[in-house]
Amino acid sequence: MAKFAKERDWDHFHTPRNLLLALVGEVGEVSEIFQWKGEVPKGLPDWKEEEKIHLGEELPDVLLYLIRLADMCGIDLGKAALRKLQLNAIKYPAPNKYTQHP
Amino acid sequence: MAKFAKERDWDHFHTPRNLLLALVGEVGEVSEIFQWKGEVPKGLPDWKEEEKIHLGEELPDVLLYLIRLADMCGIDLGKAALRKLQLNAIKYPAPNKYTQHP
Amino acid sequence: MAKFAKERDWDHFHTPRNLLLALVGEVGEVSEIFQWKGEVPKGLPDWKEEEKIHLGEELPDVLLYLIRLADMCGIDLGKAALRKLQLNAIKYPAPNKYTQHP
Amino acid sequence: MAKFAKERDWDHFHTPRNLLLALVGEVGEVSEIFQWKGEVPKGLPDWKEEEKIHLGEELPDVLLYLIRLADMCGIDLGKAALRKLQLNAIKYPAPNKYTQHP
Repeated sequence: MAKFAKERDWDHFHTPRNLLLALVGEVGEVSEIFQWKGEVPKGLPDWKEEEKIHLGEELPDVLLYLIRLADMCGIDLGKAALRKLQLNAIKYPAPNKYTQHP
Repeated sequence: MAKFAKERDWDHFHTPRNLLLALVGEVGEVSEIFQWKGEVPKGLPDWKEEEKIHLGEELPDVLLYLIRLADMCGIDLGKAALRKLQLNAIKYPAPNKYTQHP
Repeated sequence: MAKFAKERDWDHFHTPRNLLLALVGEVGEVSEIFQWKGEVPKGLPDWKEEEKIHLGEELPDVLLYLIRLADMCGIDLGKAALRKLQLNAIKYPAPNKYTQHP
Repeated sequence: MAKFAKERDWDHFHTPRNLLLALVGEVGEVSEIFQWKGEVPKGLPDWKEEEKIHLGEELPDVLLYLIRLADMCGIDLGKAALRKLQLNAIKYPAPNKYTQHP
């Protein structure tokens, strides 16, 4: 992605706050897909194929801006996510069956 | 992550709209880190170490909820992101040096 | 509010994008209140008093940043909202009883 | 607005979480207007007239969904905002000239 942006001379657009607002914009688009639906069960069983395709186009936009934002902030997102998962595993231990959701 | 949630009996919390709102909440926390800073250059040169650490803890939360949301919607996020990158490469071709940013 | 910010010498913090990110942060806090609740009926009948109070503290924060953002952008929010309501009344006329929700 | 929604039989769409996601969607649209602009000074001096008009159409959407959300939650938004302003006036007193921004 860094190469992709560089080749297109987009680097000066990709400042941290520009990317953050772009991320907010994409999260807004995902929200619009869900906004009038009431509660939606796992797997989106009642959705039309075109709605699922639309969602499948918007969710990666969130991911791509997130990766790019982390990159521009000098944060290794993959490493940071693994660390967070480990912290969560300590913070909310599994064995006892009915740990309350935070 | 699916295993992590299952072991903690969190599956019934992790409906698509619950996860989407959790994602919005985390994006809000990232925004709070940036909110009074004015424009911030690449690499966050003037940030205190603790601010960078804070950001490094919030960005992965966005990622983890995004992965989980895609999972609960039956969307392969990695595949979807690659497809999007390919589409973008076609939509915004590189060679001509001054492609305008969309 | 303009006076409030001026008296506290906050004007230089209240740039449009700073206020927009602050708004996103507050919307995130509202989302956190709703995030693990599944569908919530009108009037929040099953909420604890303290949760309603919390929501009653966060919603105005969204409003206050929104007013301030509009102000800093030179937009008369009240007038703009009235105009929007009139446009919506034309776009989605009432008489026919079952206008579909957009 | 309550009347407007009722006349159009939209009441069953206007559940709290539907409205919250609609609000997030509108905040996303405002963010998209600001996303590639870098820091923007007060009054938006360098914006094209059409961009200002666009912003003047999106900001009220945020307001209208916010009012409607508060209404569906049984919260008097105006009263809550006044209370918040009073609390802020106590929390961040004015007289001393250089109160630090929180």
